[in-house]
Amino acid sequence: MTAGLIPFVARAGDSETDAWVQALQLAMPGERVVRFDALSAEERAGCTVAIVANPNPADLCQLPALQWVHSVWAGVERLVAELGDTHLKIVRLVDPNLADTMAEAVLAWTLYLHRDMPRYARQQADAVWQSLPYVPARQRTVGLLGLGALGEAAARRLLTANFQVRGWSRNRKAMGGVTCFAGDDELQPMLAACDILVCLLPLTPQTTGLLNAQRLAWLPRGAQLINFARGRIVDDGALRAALDSGQVAHAVLDVFATEPLPPGEWQWKHPAVTVLPHCSGPTDLATAAAIVAANITRWRQNGQMDFVDSLRGY
Amino acid sequence: MTAGLIPFVARAGDSETDAWVQALQLAMPGERVVRFDALSAEERAGCTVAIVANPNPADLCQLPALQWVHSVWAGVERLVAELGDTHLKIVRLVDPNLADTMAEAVLAWTLYLHRDMPRYARQQADAVWQSLPYVPARQRTVGLLGLGALGEAAARRLLTANFQVRGWSRNRKAMGGVTCFAGDDELQPMLAACDILVCLLPLTPQTTGLLNAQRLAWLPRGAQLINFARGRIVDDGALRAALDSGQVAHAVLDVFATEPLPPGEWQWKHPAVTVLPHCSGPTDLATAAAIVAANITRWRQNGQMDFVDSLRGY
Repeated sequence: MTAGLIPFVARAGDSETDAWVQALQLAMPGERVVRFDALSAEERAGCTVAIVANPNPADLCQLPALQWVHSVWAGVERLVAELGDTHLKIVRLVDPNLADTMAEAVLAWTLYLHRDMPRYARQQADAVWQSLPYVPARQRTVGLLGLGALGEAAARRLLTANFQVRGWSRNRKAMGGVTCFAGDDELQPMLAACDILVCLLPLTPQTTGLLNAQRLAWLPRGAQLINFARGRIVDDGALRAALDSGQVAHAVLDVFATEPLPPGEWQWKHPAVTVLPHCSGPTDLATAAAIVAANITRWRQNGQMDFVDSLRGY
Repeated sequence: MTAGLIPFVARAGDSETDAWVQALQLAMPGERVVRFDALSAEERAGCTVAIVANPNPADLCQLPALQWVHSVWAGVERLVAELGDTHLKIVRLVDPNLADTMAEAVLAWTLYLHRDMPRYARQQADAVWQSLPYVPARQRTVGLLGLGALGEAAARRLLTANFQVRGWSRNRKAMGGVTCFAGDDELQPMLAACDILVCLLPLTPQTTGLLNAQRLAWLPRGAQLINFARGRIVDDGALRAALDSGQVAHAVLDVFATEPLPPGEWQWKHPAVTVLPHCSGPTDLATAAAIVAANITRWRQNGQMDFVDSLRGY
């Protein structure tokens, strides 16, 4: 196949859309990258691949020759759901730079909990001068749910900071310095020793509601939670009850069932919750565009592509 | 010299004093460690060495044979000042475990500033959902004032997190991966590129008020400050003005001219200040006692000891 016209299809503001088109065009000088809404009907008919960021499925239906779409994001559960009944295949962004940024976020917010920053902030608000007991990192166990590219990078960062690290994945992994658990049967022993639990799982039918009341009760009392994955992996009501009872001492939540988190939702004001606006793994337009470009170039050359497994969901 | 009676002299509460005596006694089974106020006059006359934690100088005067004192802390500027006119030599605690704990604190609070945690906390308080621009660590320069045992351990941790690291010391040092500056003449070029400045200097006549209005103005506009050393190294009035003007965007202060920080002091309520209760380098009684014990054993054997240089002050 030869180079050609590639539409960028997104439900996004003009400035974000234009920023993406510019970054992608820079990364693919041999292609022509165009906003979907700037294409003529004739141009639409010739497009075989599209680059997408939360696209309207109706827009994709107007590209009759389309074979597959490349998302500029790593999380594609919405695309998988919306395109499930079509023939369209999906490629998600696997960005080592994202893994690195996300691993930094895991380390930063783990240290935030490890060094008691939320409690020190409350003490400052009350003008209380009181050192809290210090637990060395080597006596603190951090558990990672998910041991893919993100989980592995996070594990390596946590090990450099001297934490005890354990991880859980659907299929068994082996990773130096990390105690690995796999499958449903090993979730309870995994959770039983996590002082800090970090969720990095993809959202799939299997992971939806995974952290329910029963699983949160498997954590040691006073454990802390970081969710950087997807809001629906955690049962909100169960988490609220666990925070209220002290079973979970604090939660850092970067993702929510509805985003932006609506004003008035309980998480905003809960003293044991840190709310973040989905900022743990910010996309770097330049590196994301370079990876999309490399994938499309390879596909043009040999037709090879790693498509998302729509049953598995990632 | 042979083992003997070692008084522990402290201005501290009973439980803290007893905890120290117990830890020290455990670490020195060949010596007898006793609270100063539990000694008879006869016992006092025989003591040649004392272990101290902020001792009352008048108590030390009641130990006529005393040759030197071993502090259980690293910072000894008060001891140096109070014992300056006596013949007593001072040993301070040099604890690699402390360097490690402090280096962890430097990394933790650097990441706190790097990942914009103070601004995200304010956004949560206002129920604002807004991602802030992300700057990769490799584009962020962290400057360390002080390149002794603490500074070196901190530099190594910051390098593992991909920050650009520079350091300043009185006498020139060389350290892999760290851009080193030395002496008064190089303080301005050092400060000129620090996005985050971390103070780890000892308090001496030379460092008192080092970070005054002029030096704070040498930082790039919007730089952030972490002071884990001593409060008096920073000119409080100059810092407050720099925070109010935005020259310094945020300060994490673990140390103050007066500790505990009195209620009503401006730092408690300033939106650009994070107040910590001198908790960045918590003392581990067990490891501190082991180091004191090793020093005293060596001294009993060969009379060798690294005393504080009272002119230099550390």
